[in-house]
Amino acid sequence: METLFDRRRELLVRAVQAAHERSFWSAFSEVPRTYGEEMPAAAKDAFAELLDRPFDLDQPASEGWVGSEISPFGRALGIAYPRTGIDLLIENAEVAGQGWKAASVEQRTGIALEILVRLNSLSFVMAHAVEQTTGQAFAMAFQAGGPHAQDRGLEAVAYAFEEMARIPGSVTWEKPAGRQAIRLDKEFHVVPRGIGLVIGCATFPTWNSYPALFADLVAGNPVIVKPHPAVVLPLALTVKVGREVLAEQGFDPDVLQIAVDSVDAPVAPSLALHPAVALVDFTGSSEFGSWLRENVRGKPIFTEETGVNTIVIESADSFEAMCQNIAFSLSLYSGQMCTSPQCIFIPEGGISTDDGHKSFAEVAAGIATAIDTLLSEPQRAAVVCGAIQNEATKDRIARARRLGRIVRDSAPLAGFEGGRTATPLILAVDATDEAAYLEERFGPISFVIACRDAADAISRAADAAKAKGGITAALYSTDDTLIDAAALKYVDAGVPLSVNLTGGIYVNQSAAFSDYHVTGANPAGNACLTDAAFVTSRFRVVCVRRPAVA
Amino acid sequence: METLFDRRRELLVRAVQAAHERSFWSAFSEVPRTYGEEMPAAAKDAFAELLDRPFDLDQPASEGWVGSEISPFGRALGIAYPRTGIDLLIENAEVAGQGWKAASVEQRTGIALEILVRLNSLSFVMAHAVEQTTGQAFAMAFQAGGPHAQDRGLEAVAYAFEEMARIPGSVTWEKPAGRQAIRLDKEFHVVPRGIGLVIGCATFPTWNSYPALFADLVAGNPVIVKPHPAVVLPLALTVKVGREVLAEQGFDPDVLQIAVDSVDAPVAPSLALHPAVALVDFTGSSEFGSWLRENVRGKPIFTEETGVNTIVIESADSFEAMCQNIAFSLSLYSGQMCTSPQCIFIPEGGISTDDGHKSFAEVAAGIATAIDTLLSEPQRAAVVCGAIQNEATKDRIARARRLGRIVRDSAPLAGFEGGRTATPLILAVDATDEAAYLEERFGPISFVIACRDAADAISRAADAAKAKGGITAALYSTDDTLIDAAALKYVDAGVPLSVNLTGGIYVNQSAAFSDYHVTGANPAGNACLTDAAFVTSRFRVVCVRRPAVA
Repeated sequence: METLFDRRRELLVRAVQAAHERSFWSAFSEVPRTYGEEMPAAAKDAFAELLDRPFDLDQPASEGWVGSEISPFGRALGIAYPRTGIDLLIENAEVAGQGWKAASVEQRTGIALEILVRLNSLSFVMAHAVEQTTGQAFAMAFQAGGPHAQDRGLEAVAYAFEEMARIPGSVTWEKPAGRQAIRLDKEFHVVPRGIGLVIGCATFPTWNSYPALFADLVAGNPVIVKPHPAVVLPLALTVKVGREVLAEQGFDPDVLQIAVDSVDAPVAPSLALHPAVALVDFTGSSEFGSWLRENVRGKPIFTEETGVNTIVIESADSFEAMCQNIAFSLSLYSGQMCTSPQCIFIPEGGISTDDGHKSFAEVAAGIATAIDTLLSEPQRAAVVCGAIQNEATKDRIARARRLGRIVRDSAPLAGFEGGRTATPLILAVDATDEAAYLEERFGPISFVIACRDAADAISRAADAAKAKGGITAALYSTDDTLIDAAALKYVDAGVPLSVNLTGGIYVNQSAAFSDYHVTGANPAGNACLTDAAFVTSRFRVVCVRRPAVA
Repeated sequence: METLFDRRRELLVRAVQAAHERSFWSAFSEVPRTYGEEMPAAAKDAFAELLDRPFDLDQPASEGWVGSEISPFGRALGIAYPRTGIDLLIENAEVAGQGWKAASVEQRTGIALEILVRLNSLSFVMAHAVEQTTGQAFAMAFQAGGPHAQDRGLEAVAYAFEEMARIPGSVTWEKPAGRQAIRLDKEFHVVPRGIGLVIGCATFPTWNSYPALFADLVAGNPVIVKPHPAVVLPLALTVKVGREVLAEQGFDPDVLQIAVDSVDAPVAPSLALHPAVALVDFTGSSEFGSWLRENVRGKPIFTEETGVNTIVIESADSFEAMCQNIAFSLSLYSGQMCTSPQCIFIPEGGISTDDGHKSFAEVAAGIATAIDTLLSEPQRAAVVCGAIQNEATKDRIARARRLGRIVRDSAPLAGFEGGRTATPLILAVDATDEAAYLEERFGPISFVIACRDAADAISRAADAAKAKGGITAALYSTDDTLIDAAALKYVDAGVPLSVNLTGGIYVNQSAAFSDYHVTGANPAGNACLTDAAFVTSRFRVVCVRRPAVA
């Protein structure tokens, strides 16, 4: 009989190869029309079916039902999820973990791959779920919530599989010792660590959770997914698919569970502290990240936290294209990406460009105008900006207005009366106003910062990443010598650098199988989602050795 | 010009291959005579030259000189080491780290390999240094302190190199996008984490420190080695060799420094807490291991701590050979190995053997008698037992006598009047006397434990590893079905299992390039010295991307 591993082997082989090469590859199409003509309508219906009723999931509602998701576009989703108690979650995970641990790496990998393929076929429904919880525009919700997230999950599977596959199942160890050799048969057992807790975020619920979720599964750890209470549906759909595949393959579906909670009764701390939880993955605020580090001892903790992303503009060989590119990066999902820029450092004396010298004010105005142009057409503005996930972000925008001179004010999008929307706010400040710009201001809030000169700008950008954390950085310059020297400073600060991006590629974008997302080398997170260190401590190896049969 | 990497490439390639295959391989000969006829005498002289004077090391004695090593065989070594202040150590490491970070992975790997090769040629001097500080017999000090430690260091180099070498230096990323592809040139930079602190132990100063020391170096981290204040010389020699090679290759020797301290003014806590120290490796007591976990936040901590190693005897197809094997394991270095057995679980009703049924008392007596025989000849006894490293171990033996019925008493070795020696103490206890046998009793103290039956014995052994930590476990049985079922329990407890060892292989021995030493899967340590997880978080990857030149 063909196993799932056999069926999906090509996908795995190609993914492992891609993770080595790191040139462009993607397993799951980001082009909606490749999913078939009927898909959009069918998915719309399927999504509508999910609303205003209990979510169909075979987990016990031992502590009742919970769910209060409200779309940032206006409507309450009306979905109730079973709330399974912490002790029961742990107990079920431990029971299910016995069978999962006993499965081979190939079995587990085959199942992980199958889950990803099924999630892929569900990408349109997922797009609705992500759109209506995170506030992403549909196109982005489709790509980031669907194929891009699946690619990231696959990447983690590839890394974890490769690290486990390199361990031989058994060997005969033969040591020369005088006349007679000493011969031992050794079996190497890959053993999981225990229950993996994956704590999701409110903006990229799938993209940021899949790497940990799939790495844990493949390494043999049962997983408890703890979604953000405001953004449950995308991970509930994920867990449902996972449980179905597990059950079909004869495993206890409790290998993968969801812990839905509410804002007033959070369960993440208790789960993270539980002795049976061996691995904690978290995407979210540095505040909870610090809490985890302070309180959760002796377990690997993998985090993606907050940071301050920067752009330095030293000079430009295409001023207009640069302004357009930056305008898009600032507007995309209303600045609610962990990769969105916040600080734009510009020499106070201005910069040289293909369009002549531009003063500091002209550069700032160039970006502001490019945003106005980008968002001038309401439908396009909606596709770029989406909605604001959390009311707190709206409040933050309001408070931020006092932090500097307003270069471009934020405003709601046209045509979204029921929804929570906001275009980018840009504030001009001086480089000395660090209290204003060096704190993460999550949302469509950015600063143009007048610096002494280019060297000062670059130093400040690199130092910001070092001190406050940084997930992305961008630099515009026509001077290759300056770029090379600056690059070393960014490398030193542990922040990925994008240079002179124009056209259809943006600093916000992190490509699967190529970019290392979160370096782990600055305070924006202690872990990369996509390197060997992210997977290698999720399992251990235990050897059983005995005299070889002659 | 031939680089060090070129010169040592074959060694590296073979080591990487061996680490994959995990069948027998060793880079550095453990056979003394292969080091040349003149070596023993020359090394003896060279060692004598080291005594009773300041150690020749180019580190500033900014806080004077320190050193109070006294050989467990009797004499004070009379060596003084420069005590470099903590702030100066950190400052020097940071300065030296700049150049080290800028070196290529190949340069750093070449230097690490060269250091190992030079240490190998110094193995006889190292043997004296290890013997006269740890109390190991010379033959063991030679093997474990020299070639075996070098093999473990090489293994870490191989792992770290492989994990870094898989990251491409640069790629062109080309994403199809309509008419025109998006093309980015990406450079991937391997960046070190920061200063690595390697805290050595008093019994295997080189073997237990080399994996971390070399993994840190290869990954680009400057290293501060903090030896046990009673066992400095082996690591001082190591650091001296390392600094020489670094300087020859044009690097600041402060890439590798030693922090010698004294018992009354320990520096390990301050160093571990220092913000510039990014990685901590520690071998020693669970007490300090716990302190590290409680106090050092947000840094990878790799530990090998204490545990309770076990033997279960269910049946034997060669009773005499089994007793001899166990006798050797208990006697070797007077039980001061992290791999030495402590608990011997035996069914109270006795066992079946090739020599007929043996009662519990007869099994205990068999082991005791085998020890008597092994140690009956004083010269052999000295070679097997060596000396007791620490006076506290002697006290522990004295106190332990009350913990059970004495089956075999401990006694000093004959002919070591000036030295601190002790043969194995064996106590008989009941399985319920957990307070006696379930605490680590470091040194030549072991227990024969009367269990209800074989199943009880196996459960207790596996539970001991789970609860108290275990680095080794052994099982004797003629029943293959029982062995297979038991093996799963040990795997579950995360402890390596050796089955039916007789002849020239012992449970205490952990072979480089094959055995995973410390699984990291039970409380005996959170890290394996010899897997990918031990190396992958010692570096990070930062990408610089820019539009590809057409």
